[in-house]
Amino acid sequence: MKYQKHVFICTNQKEAPKKSCGEAHGTELVNAFKEALKERGLHTTMRAQKTGCLDMCAFGPSLVVYPEGVFYGNVQLGDVDEIVESHLVNDTPVERLKLNF
Amino acid sequence: MKYQKHVFICTNQKEAPKKSCGEAHGTELVNAFKEALKERGLHTTMRAQKTGCLDMCAFGPSLVVYPEGVFYGNVQLGDVDEIVESHLVNDTPVERLKLNF
Repeated sequence: MKYQKHVFICTNQKEAPKKSCGEAHGTELVNAFKEALKERGLHTTMRAQKTGCLDMCAFGPSLVVYPEGVFYGNVQLGDVDEIVESHLVNDTPVERLKLNF
Repeated sequence: MKYQKHVFICTNQKEAPKKSCGEAHGTELVNAFKEALKERGLHTTMRAQKTGCLDMCAFGPSLVVYPEGVFYGNVQLGDVDEIVESHLVNDTPVERLKLNF
């Protein structure tokens, strides 16, 4: 597997009043994840990047972590370090943000 | 896992002469995958969508299939049905297009 963890963060922007993850917020999340991975020297084995609509608009801002296929909803900038430390580094998904299907 | 297969297709456009997967081609691929899944009634259990740069610019047009984390390069519209049938439906990656790391 090319990446131990591959994080896809929605940056899809829909016109108001439709709810969407949002380009500005999504881009901030992408940058925060990239920085957090780089700080830990993980940016060659893990990747965070922007993606299109994950079809989770009602639960956004949303992202998905593969290969596990764990979706997160209502992700704020302050949650990034916890997701990186708990899930990406220690393989323990963050239950309070996880979307359960 | 929400999706049995989740296909992320790069639609990133860089300015020439830089090589990139390209927005027009990537979008055509996304539409072709969506149509192929719908035709087979697989669109509720599998998802194909656009994504940002997969860092495979030199091998584009590129995509990745999760949860396996199999990357494909130089994907053309004529390859979509083979990837869907062989990989997504029958779990046999298409070796001739697969990127090996």
